[in-house]
Amino acid sequence: MKISARNAFDGVVTEVKKGTTTAHVTIDVKGLIVTASITNESVEDLGLVPGAKVKAIVKSSDVIVAVD
Amino acid sequence: MKISARNAFDGVVTEVKKGTTTAHVTIDVKGLIVTASITNESVEDLGLVPGAKVKAIVKSSDVIVAVD
Amino acid sequence: MKISARNAFDGVVTEVKKGTTTAHVTIDVKGLIVTASITNESVEDLGLVPGAKVKAIVKSSDVIVAVD
Amino acid sequence: MKISARNAFDGVVTEVKKGTTTAHVTIDVKGLIVTASITNESVEDLGLVPGAKVKAIVKSSDVIVAVD
Amino acid sequence: MKISARNAFDGVVTEVKKGTTTAHVTIDVKGLIVTASITNESVEDLGLVPGAKVKAIVKSSDVIVAVD
Amino acid sequence: MKISARNAFDGVVTEVKKGTTTAHVTIDVKGLIVTASITNESVEDLGLVPGAKVKAIVKSSDVIVAVD
Repeated sequence: MKISARNAFDGVVTEVKKGTTTAHVTIDVKGLIVTASITNESVEDLGLVPGAKVKAIVKSSDVIVAVD
Repeated sequence: MKISARNAFDGVVTEVKKGTTTAHVTIDVKGLIVTASITNESVEDLGLVPGAKVKAIVKSSDVIVAVD
Repeated sequence: MKISARNAFDGVVTEVKKGTTTAHVTIDVKGLIVTASITNESVEDLGLVPGAKVKAIVKSSDVIVAVD
Repeated sequence: MKISARNAFDGVVTEVKKGTTTAHVTIDVKGLIVTASITNESVEDLGLVPGAKVKAIVKSSDVIVAVD
Repeated sequence: MKISARNAFDGVVTEVKKGTTTAHVTIDVKGLIVTASITNESVEDLGLVPGAKVKAIVKSSDVIVAVD
Repeated sequence: MKISARNAFDGVVTEVKKGTTTAHVTIDVKGLIVTASITNESVEDLGLVPGAKVKAIVKSSDVIVAVD
Protein backbone atom coordinates (compact mmCIF):
# COMPACT_ATOMS: atom_id res chain seq x y z
CA MET A 1 0.00 0.00 0.00
CA LYS A 2 1.27 3.47 -0.89
CA ILE A 3 0.07 6.34 1.23
CA SER A 4 -0.21 10.10 0.59
CA ALA A 5 1.28 11.00 3.97
CA ARG A 6 4.80 12.23 3.18
CA ASN A 7 6.32 10.95 6.40
CA ALA A 8 6.43 7.17 6.90
CA PHE A 9 9.39 5.83 8.82
CA ASP A 10 10.37 2.28 9.74
CA GLY A 11 10.78 1.61 13.42
CA VAL A 12 10.43 -0.87 16.25
CA VAL A 13 7.89 -0.65 19.06
CA THR A 14 9.62 -0.09 22.41
CA GLU A 15 6.65 0.30 24.75
CA VAL A 16 2.86 0.00 24.71
CA LYS A 17 0.90 1.64 27.49
CA LYS A 18 -2.85 1.11 27.37
CA GLY A 19 -5.32 3.46 29.00
CA THR A 20 -9.04 2.85 29.28
CA THR A 21 -9.66 3.82 25.64
CA THR A 22 -6.42 5.41 24.38
CA ALA A 23 -2.97 3.80 24.21
CA HIS A 24 0.47 5.37 23.93
CA VAL A 25 2.93 3.52 21.75
CA THR A 26 6.59 4.48 21.58
CA ILE A 27 8.56 3.58 18.48
CA ASP A 28 12.31 3.64 17.98
CA VAL A 29 12.98 5.17 14.55
CA LYS A 30 16.74 5.17 13.96
CA GLY A 31 17.30 6.14 17.59
CA LEU A 32 14.55 8.76 17.63
CA ILE A 33 11.78 7.87 20.06
CA VAL A 34 8.44 8.62 18.42
CA THR A 35 5.26 8.57 20.54
CA ALA A 36 1.90 7.73 18.98
CA SER A 37 -1.44 8.11 20.71
CA ILE A 38 -3.84 5.60 19.19
CA THR A 39 -6.91 3.59 20.21
CA ASN A 40 -6.62 0.41 22.29
CA GLU A 41 -8.47 -1.36 19.49
CA SER A 42 -5.70 -0.48 17.04
CA VAL A 43 -3.08 -1.85 19.42
CA GLU A 44 -4.93 -5.16 19.40
CA ASP A 45 -5.75 -5.23 15.70
CA LEU A 46 -2.14 -4.56 14.74
CA GLY A 47 -0.70 -6.84 17.45
CA LEU A 48 1.51 -4.08 18.75
CA VAL A 49 3.99 -5.35 21.34
CA PRO A 50 7.56 -4.33 22.13
CA GLY A 51 9.78 -5.52 19.31
CA ALA A 52 7.12 -5.30 16.62
CA LYS A 53 8.29 -3.79 13.34
CA VAL A 54 6.08 -0.88 12.36
CA LYS A 55 5.90 2.32 10.38
CA ALA A 56 5.31 5.68 12.07
CA ILE A 57 3.23 7.80 9.69
CA VAL A 58 2.60 11.55 9.86
CA LYS A 59 0.81 13.80 7.36
CA SER A 60 2.93 16.82 6.39
CA SER A 61 0.14 19.19 7.47
CA ASP A 62 0.62 17.87 11.02
CA VAL A 63 4.31 18.81 11.23
CA ILE A 64 5.18 22.06 13.01
CA VAL A 65 8.58 23.72 12.52
CA ALA A 66 10.38 25.64 15.26
CA VAL A 67 13.61 27.57 15.50
CA ASP A 68 15.50 28.56 18.64
CA MET B 1 10.26 26.82 25.70
CA LYS B 2 9.01 23.35 26.59
CA ILE B 3 6.16 21.94 24.56
CA SER B 4 3.54 19.26 25.24
CA ALA B 5 4.00 17.64 21.82
CA ARG B 6 5.91 14.42 22.54
CA ASN B 7 7.80 14.45 19.27
CA ALA B 8 10.31 17.26 18.72
CA PHE B 9 13.39 16.38 16.71
CA ASP B 10 16.40 18.45 15.74
CA GLY B 11 17.04 18.74 12.04
CA VAL B 12 18.33 20.89 9.21
CA VAL B 13 16.17 22.39 6.45
CA THR B 14 17.04 20.87 3.07
CA GLU B 15 14.46 22.52 0.82
CA VAL B 16 11.78 25.21 0.94
CA LYS B 17 9.13 25.26 -1.76
CA LYS B 18 6.63 28.08 -1.55
CA GLY B 19 3.18 27.91 -3.07
CA THR B 20 0.72 30.78 -3.28
CA THR B 21 -0.26 30.41 0.39
CA THR B 22 1.21 27.09 1.56
CA ALA B 23 4.88 26.09 1.63
CA HIS B 24 6.49 22.66 1.83
CA VAL B 25 9.63 22.46 3.92
CA THR B 26 11.80 19.35 4.01
CA ILE B 27 13.95 18.73 7.05
CA ASP B 28 16.79 16.25 7.47
CA VAL B 29 16.41 14.62 10.89
CA LYS B 30 19.29 12.17 11.38
CA GLY B 31 18.97 11.10 7.76
CA LEU B 32 15.18 10.89 7.81
CA ILE B 33 13.58 13.39 5.44
CA VAL B 34 10.60 14.96 7.17
CA THR B 35 8.17 17.08 5.13
CA ALA B 36 6.19 19.89 6.77
CA SER B 37 3.36 21.77 5.14
CA ILE B 38 3.20 25.24 6.70
CA THR B 39 2.13 28.75 5.74
CA ASN B 40 4.35 31.00 3.62
CA GLU B 41 4.17 33.53 6.46
CA SER B 42 5.78 31.04 8.84
CA VAL B 43 8.59 30.42 6.37
CA GLU B 44 9.31 34.14 6.39
CA ASP B 45 8.84 34.68 10.13
CA LEU B 46 11.17 31.83 10.99
CA GLY B 47 13.67 32.65 8.24
CA LEU B 48 13.55 29.13 6.88
CA VAL B 49 16.18 28.52 4.22
CA PRO B 50 18.21 25.43 3.36
CA GLY B 51 20.76 24.88 6.11
CA ALA B 52 18.66 26.42 8.88
CA LYS B 53 18.66 24.47 12.14
CA VAL B 54 15.12 23.68 13.20
CA LYS B 55 12.96 21.33 15.21
CA ALA B 56 10.28 19.19 13.57
CA ILE B 57 7.41 18.89 16.02
CA VAL B 58 4.48 16.43 15.92
CA LYS B 59 1.74 15.84 18.48
CA SER B 60 1.42 12.16 19.43
CA SER B 61 -2.27 12.17 18.44
CA ASP B 62 -1.13 12.90 14.86
CA VAL B 63 1.06 9.81 14.55
CA ILE B 64 -0.43 6.78 12.80
CA VAL B 65 1.09 3.33 13.21
CA ALA B 66 1.14 0.72 10.44
CA VAL B 67 2.35 -2.85 10.14
CA ASP B 68 3.05 -4.79 6.95
CA MET C 1 -0.38 -3.05 5.31
CA LYS C 2 -2.62 -2.64 8.36
CA ILE C 3 -2.99 0.83 9.80
CA SER C 4 -3.96 2.13 13.24
CA ALA C 5 -6.33 4.76 11.81
CA ARG C 6 -9.82 3.39 12.54
CA ASN C 7 -11.39 4.87 9.43
CA ALA C 8 -10.23 3.52 6.07
CA PHE C 9 -12.82 3.39 3.33
CA ASP C 10 -12.61 2.15 -0.24
CA GLY C 11 -13.47 4.70 -2.89
CA VAL C 12 -12.83 5.98 -6.39
CA VAL C 13 -11.17 9.29 -7.25
CA THR C 14 -13.62 11.63 -8.96
CA GLU C 15 -11.53 14.78 -9.32
CA VAL C 16 -7.97 15.99 -8.80
CA LYS C 17 -7.33 19.71 -8.59
CA LYS C 18 -3.72 20.72 -8.19
CA GLY C 19 -2.64 24.00 -6.66
CA THR C 20 0.90 25.31 -6.57
CA THR C 21 1.84 23.02 -3.67
CA THR C 22 -1.42 21.56 -2.35
CA ALA C 23 -3.93 19.42 -4.25
CA HIS C 24 -7.57 18.68 -3.52
CA VAL C 25 -8.71 15.17 -4.33
CA THR C 26 -12.34 14.14 -4.21
CA ILE C 27 -13.18 10.51 -3.63
CA ASP C 28 -16.52 8.76 -4.05
CA VAL C 29 -17.00 6.44 -1.08
CA LYS C 30 -20.32 4.59 -1.50
CA GLY C 31 -21.89 7.79 -2.81
CA LEU C 32 -20.35 10.01 -0.15
CA ILE C 33 -17.99 12.58 -1.65
CA VAL C 34 -14.89 12.81 0.53
CA THR C 35 -12.41 15.65 -0.04
CA ALA C 36 -8.74 15.22 0.82
CA SER C 37 -6.18 18.00 0.86
CA ILE C 38 -2.78 16.48 0.12
CA THR C 39 0.53 17.50 -1.45
CA ASN C 40 0.99 17.63 -5.22
CA GLU C 41 3.89 15.20 -4.76
CA SER C 42 1.54 12.62 -3.26
CA VAL C 43 -0.81 12.99 -6.21
CA GLU C 44 2.06 12.14 -8.51
CA ASP C 45 3.58 9.38 -6.39
CA LEU C 46 0.24 7.60 -6.04
CA GLY C 47 -0.79 8.24 -9.65
CA LEU C 48 -4.07 9.78 -8.58
CA VAL C 49 -6.39 10.41 -11.51
CA PRO C 50 -10.15 10.21 -11.84
CA GLY C 51 -11.18 6.58 -11.72
CA ALA C 52 -8.28 5.44 -9.52
CA LYS C 53 -9.24 3.05 -6.74
CA VAL C 54 -8.07 4.38 -3.39
CA LYS C 55 -8.68 4.31 0.33
CA ALA C 56 -9.69 7.44 2.24
CA ILE C 57 -8.09 7.21 5.69
CA VAL C 58 -8.91 9.30 8.78
CA LYS C 59 -7.59 8.95 12.34
CA SER C 60 -10.42 8.79 14.90
CA SER C 61 -8.97 11.75 16.79
CA ASP C 62 -9.64 13.85 13.67
CA VAL C 63 -13.38 13.14 13.57
CA ILE C 64 -15.71 15.74 15.08
CA VAL C 65 -19.29 14.88 15.98
CA ALA C 66 -22.17 17.35 15.69
CA VAL C 67 -25.87 17.24 16.48
CA ASP C 68 -28.58 19.57 15.17
CA MET D 1 -24.60 26.41 10.97
CA LYS D 2 -22.38 26.00 7.91
CA ILE D 3 -18.86 24.72 8.46
CA SER D 4 -15.64 24.98 6.44
CA ALA D 5 -14.78 21.31 6.91
CA ARG D 6 -15.51 19.72 3.52
CA ASN D 7 -16.58 16.39 4.93
CA ALA D 8 -19.77 16.32 7.01
CA PHE D 9 -21.86 13.19 6.77
CA ASP D 10 -25.16 12.26 8.38
CA GLY D 11 -25.12 9.15 10.52
CA VAL D 12 -26.47 7.36 13.55
CA VAL D 13 -24.50 6.60 16.71
CA THR D 14 -24.08 2.84 17.15
CA GLU D 15 -21.86 2.70 20.25
CA VAL D 16 -20.42 5.00 22.89
CA LYS D 17 -17.49 3.77 24.96
CA LYS D 18 -16.28 6.15 27.63
CA GLY D 19 -12.77 6.05 29.03
CA THR D 20 -11.52 8.10 31.96
CA THR D 21 -11.22 11.27 29.85
CA THR D 22 -11.61 10.17 26.22
CA ALA D 23 -14.60 8.45 24.61
CA HIS D 24 -14.86 6.47 21.41
CA VAL D 25 -18.05 6.93 19.46
CA THR D 26 -18.93 4.80 16.46
CA ILE D 27 -21.28 6.20 13.85
CA ASP D 28 -23.05 4.38 11.04
CA VAL D 29 -22.80 6.56 7.92
CA LYS D 30 -24.63 4.80 5.08
CA GLY D 31 -23.25 1.48 6.26
CA LEU D 32 -19.72 2.80 6.82
CA ILE D 33 -18.70 2.59 10.47
CA VAL D 34 -16.89 5.80 11.40
CA THR D 35 -15.03 5.98 14.73
CA ALA D 36 -14.57 9.31 16.51
CA SER D 37 -12.34 9.86 19.51
CA ILE D 38 -13.77 12.79 21.50
CA THR D 39 -13.88 13.99 25.10
CA ASN D 40 -16.29 12.51 27.64
CA GLU D 41 -17.61 16.04 28.17
CA SER D 42 -18.65 16.25 24.53
CA VAL D 43 -20.49 12.95 24.80
CA GLU D 44 -22.51 14.41 27.66
CA ASP D 45 -23.02 17.85 26.15
CA LEU D 46 -24.29 16.41 22.88
CA GLY D 47 -26.29 13.65 24.56
CA LEU D 48 -24.65 10.98 22.47
CA VAL D 49 -26.28 7.59 22.89
CA PRO D 50 -26.86 4.73 20.46
CA GLY D 51 -29.51 5.80 18.00
CA ALA D 52 -28.71 9.51 18.15
CA LYS D 53 -28.67 11.27 14.78
CA VAL D 54 -25.35 13.06 14.27
CA LYS D 55 -22.97 14.39 11.70
CA ALA D 56 -19.41 13.04 11.40
CA ILE D 57 -17.17 15.93 10.39
CA VAL D 58 -13.61 15.78 9.04
CA LYS D 59 -11.41 18.58 7.73
CA SER D 60 -9.98 17.78 4.29
CA SER D 61 -6.43 18.31 5.57
CA ASP D 62 -7.00 15.32 7.89
CA VAL D 63 -7.81 12.87 5.10
CA ILE D 64 -5.01 10.61 3.90
CA VAL D 65 -5.23 8.80 0.56
CA ALA D 66 -3.77 5.34 -0.06
CA VAL D 67 -3.54 3.02 -3.04
CA ASP D 68 -2.85 -0.72 -3.01
CA MET E 1 -25.87 22.75 15.68
CA LYS E 2 -23.83 21.60 18.68
CA ILE E 3 -20.35 20.30 18.02
CA SER E 4 -18.02 17.97 19.96
CA ALA E 5 -14.99 20.23 19.44
CA ARG E 6 -14.42 21.87 22.85
CA ASN E 7 -13.12 25.11 21.41
CA ALA E 8 -15.57 27.25 19.42
CA PHE E 9 -15.10 31.00 19.67
CA ASP E 10 -17.05 33.85 18.15
CA GLY E 11 -15.07 36.21 15.98
CA VAL E 12 -15.03 38.48 12.97
CA VAL E 13 -13.13 37.83 9.74
CA THR E 14 -10.38 40.41 9.25
CA GLU E 15 -8.70 39.12 6.09
CA VAL E 16 -9.15 36.47 3.43
CA LYS E 17 -6.19 35.52 1.28
CA LYS E 18 -6.87 32.95 -1.40
CA GLY E 19 -4.17 30.75 -2.88
CA THR E 20 -4.64 28.42 -5.84
CA THR E 21 -6.40 25.79 -3.71
CA THR E 22 -5.88 26.84 -0.06
CA ALA E 23 -7.00 30.07 1.59
CA HIS E 24 -5.83 31.73 4.79
CA VAL E 25 -8.51 33.42 6.82
CA THR E 26 -7.73 35.59 9.82
CA ILE E 27 -10.35 36.02 12.51
CA ASP E 28 -10.44 38.52 15.36
CA VAL E 29 -11.57 36.68 18.50
CA LYS E 30 -11.75 39.16 21.35
CA GLY E 31 -8.57 40.81 20.11
CA LEU E 32 -6.76 37.53 19.46
CA ILE E 33 -5.94 37.05 15.78
CA VAL E 34 -6.66 33.46 14.83
CA THR E 35 -5.47 32.14 11.46
CA ALA E 36 -7.32 29.33 9.70
CA SER E 37 -6.07 27.49 6.65
CA ILE E 38 -9.10 26.22 4.73
CA THR E 39 -10.06 25.39 1.15
CA ASN E 40 -11.00 28.11 -1.34
CA GLU E 41 -14.30 26.28 -1.80
CA SER E 42 -15.13 26.76 1.87
CA VAL E 43 -14.40 30.48 1.61
CA GLU E 44 -16.96 30.69 -1.18
CA ASP E 45 -19.55 28.38 0.38
CA LEU E 46 -19.49 30.27 3.66
CA GLY E 47 -19.28 33.69 2.01
CA LEU E 48 -16.24 34.64 4.03
CA VAL E 49 -15.29 38.29 3.61
CA PRO E 50 -13.81 40.81 6.04
CA GLY E 51 -16.45 41.70 8.59
CA ALA E 52 -18.26 38.35 8.46
CA LYS E 53 -19.27 36.95 11.84
CA VAL E 54 -17.89 33.44 12.27
CA LYS E 55 -16.86 30.84 14.79
CA ALA E 56 -13.27 29.58 14.99
CA ILE E 57 -13.42 25.90 15.97
CA VAL E 58 -10.57 23.70 17.19
CA LYS E 59 -10.69 20.13 18.51
CA SER E 60 -8.97 19.77 21.89
CA SER E 61 -6.65 17.08 20.52
CA ASP E 62 -5.23 19.75 18.17
CA VAL E 63 -4.17 22.12 20.96
CA ILE E 64 -0.53 22.02 22.06
CA VAL E 65 0.55 23.52 25.38
CA ALA E 66 3.92 25.20 25.92
CA VAL E 67 5.69 26.78 28.87
CA ASP E 68 8.64 29.17 28.78
CA MET F 1 11.79 29.43 20.40
CA LYS F 2 9.75 30.61 17.42
CA ILE F 3 7.18 28.21 16.02
CA SER F 4 5.49 27.89 12.61
CA ALA F 5 2.03 27.40 14.13
CA ARG F 6 0.24 30.71 13.49
CA ASN F 7 -1.83 30.58 16.64
CA ALA F 8 0.04 30.83 19.97
CA PHE F 9 -1.79 32.58 22.77
CA ASP F 10 -0.74 33.35 26.34
CA GLY F 11 -2.97 31.95 29.04
CA VAL F 12 -3.21 30.52 32.52
CA VAL F 13 -4.07 26.91 33.36
CA THR F 14 -7.40 26.69 35.18
CA GLU F 15 -7.84 22.93 35.51
CA VAL F 16 -5.93 19.71 34.88
CA LYS F 17 -7.86 16.47 34.69
CA LYS F 18 -5.76 13.36 34.22
CA GLY F 19 -7.13 10.16 32.72
CA THR F 20 -5.27 6.87 32.53
CA THR F 21 -3.15 8.05 29.58
CA THR F 22 -4.72 11.29 28.33
CA ALA F 23 -5.21 14.53 30.28
CA HIS F 24 -7.51 17.45 29.64
CA VAL F 25 -6.08 20.85 30.44
CA THR F 26 -8.19 24.00 30.41
CA ILE F 27 -6.50 27.32 29.82
CA ASP F 28 -7.89 30.80 30.31
CA VAL F 29 -6.83 32.92 27.32
CA LYS F 30 -8.14 36.44 27.83
CA GLY F 31 -11.38 35.03 29.22
CA LEU F 32 -11.72 32.36 26.53
CA ILE F 33 -11.55 28.86 27.99
CA VAL F 34 -9.38 26.71 25.73
CA THR F 35 -9.33 22.93 26.26
CA ALA F 36 -6.27 20.88 25.30
CA SER F 37 -6.14 17.11 25.21
CA ILE F 38 -2.53 16.07 25.84
CA THR F 39 -0.63 13.12 27.33
CA ASN F 40 -0.26 12.68 31.09
CA GLU F 41 3.49 12.66 30.52
CA SER F 42 3.35 16.17 29.06
CA VAL F 43 1.39 17.39 32.08
CA GLU F 44 4.19 16.16 34.29
CA ASP F 45 7.08 17.29 32.09
CA LEU F 46 5.68 20.81 31.83
CA GLY F 47 4.59 20.95 35.46
CA LEU F 48 1.06 21.92 34.50
CA VAL F 49 -1.03 22.91 37.52
CA PRO F 50 -3.77 25.49 37.94
CA GLY F 51 -2.19 28.93 37.82
CA ALA F 52 0.68 27.94 35.53
CA LYS F 53 1.44 30.42 32.73
CA VAL F 54 1.36 28.68 29.38
CA LYS F 55 0.84 29.16 25.68
CA ALA F 56 -2.00 27.45 23.81
CA ILE F 57 -0.74 26.62 20.32
CA VAL F 58 -2.79 25.59 17.27
CA LYS F 59 -1.66 25.04 13.70
CA SER F 60 -3.77 27.03 11.20
CA SER F 61 -4.63 23.84 9.30
CA ASP F 62 -6.42 22.63 12.45
CA VAL F 63 -8.80 25.61 12.64
CA ILE F 64 -12.30 25.15 11.23
CA VAL F 65 -14.50 28.14 10.41
CA ALA F 66 -18.28 28.13 10.81
CA VAL F 67 -21.06 30.61 10.12
CA ASP F 68 -24.60 30.59 11.51
